[in-house]
Amino acid sequence: MNYKALVEEKIEEIRETVGDGIALNALSGGVDSSVVTVLGHRALGDRLRTVFVDNALMREGEPQRVVGIFADMGIPVERIDARAAFLDALTGLTDPEDKRNAVTDTFYRKVFGDLVQTGGTKYLLHGTILTDIEETVAGIKRQHNILAQMGIDPEKEYGYHVLEPLATLRKDGVREVARVLGLPGELTERIPFPGPALATRIVGEVTPERLDTVRAATSIVEEELGASGAFQYMAVLLTDKATGIRDGKREFGQIVVVRCIDSVDARTATAVELPWDVLHRICQRVTAIEGVNRCLYDLTPKPPATVEYV
Amino acid sequence: MNYKALVEEKIEEIRETVGDGIALNALSGGVDSSVVTVLGHRALGDRLRTVFVDNALMREGEPQRVVGIFADMGIPVERIDARAAFLDALTGLTDPEDKRNAVTDTFYRKVFGDLVQTGGTKYLLHGTILTDIEETVAGIKRQHNILAQMGIDPEKEYGYHVLEPLATLRKDGVREVARVLGLPGELTERIPFPGPALATRIVGEVTPERLDTVRAATSIVEEELGASGAFQYMAVLLTDKATGIRDGKREFGQIVVVRCIDSVDARTATAVELPWDVLHRICQRVTAIEGVNRCLYDLTPKPPATVEYV
Repeated sequence: MNYKALVEEKIEEIRETVGDGIALNALSGGVDSSVVTVLGHRALGDRLRTVFVDNALMREGEPQRVVGIFADMGIPVERIDARAAFLDALTGLTDPEDKRNAVTDTFYRKVFGDLVQTGGTKYLLHGTILTDIEETVAGIKRQHNILAQMGIDPEKEYGYHVLEPLATLRKDGVREVARVLGLPGELTERIPFPGPALATRIVGEVTPERLDTVRAATSIVEEELGASGAFQYMAVLLTDKATGIRDGKREFGQIVVVRCIDSVDARTATAVELPWDVLHRICQRVTAIEGVNRCLYDLTPKPPATVEYV
Repeated sequence: MNYKALVEEKIEEIRETVGDGIALNALSGGVDSSVVTVLGHRALGDRLRTVFVDNALMREGEPQRVVGIFADMGIPVERIDARAAFLDALTGLTDPEDKRNAVTDTFYRKVFGDLVQTGGTKYLLHGTILTDIEETVAGIKRQHNILAQMGIDPEKEYGYHVLEPLATLRKDGVREVARVLGLPGELTERIPFPGPALATRIVGEVTPERLDTVRAATSIVEEELGASGAFQYMAVLLTDKATGIRDGKREFGQIVVVRCIDSVDARTATAVELPWDVLHRICQRVTAIEGVNRCLYDLTPKPPATVEYV
């Protein structure tokens, strides 16, 4: 595929569709939304308002890091503090679909609804990719960013049009586009991170305390596996507890799962055969997190498992 | 240590304590209770009544296998079907201590109480080892076979005396005694298996369906790791579920953990660095069990984890 031509085509499409209106896009810092931000900025310049929604589900230091990278590229990004809204919406929910729906709904209806109403925006640029659409249509998972495919009319439901310039690409194609656009390696080579963020890394209820635990584990896994060359790696917090010993006393502790996969396009994946010294070191550091006394490594390919747990 | 002298000493002790009475012992097929059975048989001959209590928590084919091995040694073992009593006692319990207590109580009070009352037995031979006592005293875990150490008087509570001929030995010492006694390798080299059996391999409620699942996973892990030379290996069923894909459709599946450790005496342990082809094959077979779509490998040493999960 000629990705340079594709980039020009997408920029032109955005320009034509939005006309002299104002568009809005949400940047998460993942490669999909980063590419959309740059495409949109090239198409619309100042008429693209890019926001970074802090949903309380972010990794350590994520908001500062992402806003900083785009500032360096001359693209202003506005940080929206929506932490309380997301935490409220997630309280008491344990079913994976309910949790994803709560994040979707808070994101599109509450946060975006407010921004659209106050900002005169009618267009939303969104980084949906082909794999998201396929899995949603197949009923495997409801992605947070699929609306039309679910039979939801975003204009009617939320008051705006959604543009999805990456909807014909898979992850490898998006990375090609990112290279054509000259995005820094820190963004283009970034491992995939889901829209509902750490909420998909917590089995059971999402609470501030459990977010702190999985956030600490995620930092450790990303530090240790940053040089692994793997497609994606993550830490997942389970609700089950197991017996353990700490300082000679019985302890009933939490369980963290480490998942590290090789994949081309996220449609299929295999567990990476990591060096044992790396696995032992991750385990040692993860079980030093308060309340955690087990660290497990996920051996399961996709299928039969998905990449995420929720 | 001179294990031959120790064996003679223990046989003499049993003979003196029991006098011309009748003793009872429960054989699980693990090395501890197997050694006690042979010691007791040498000391008392026909005056030792050895029972194998089928508690519904056994591995595939276990009752037939164990009774058969002892029949070949000329030691008759009586199979007691107590499956309903144990399953009833475990219904609705999810706390690890409650589950262990239910198994202990059903075992000592109900099943043994009945046997003692109907059989004129006053002495129970039991395979308690030093590690069990230390961990119980330290408050790490309540072993199923510790009574005096817990401040329970078995004569008063259950109507019999408990003799613990292995109470000064750790697992490696028990294996030495087993070799001195000439036990078949199938028993002496057997990996440790806990008294509450598969109940310790199920996080959450123990039900017949969940026992079937963990029993199938246990068979796979024992087949695949039988030649590994590891100290102990097991399959554990969690209550958490995770998303997956089967035949192109979303599936919310169960999670099985594989644990395989190296240890000398079970006081400390480390996760074995198994070959990846073995791990992948175990994962493939385990995720073929109905309802299971994840297979995880436990990386955690003891401490901070214990060997078992419950």
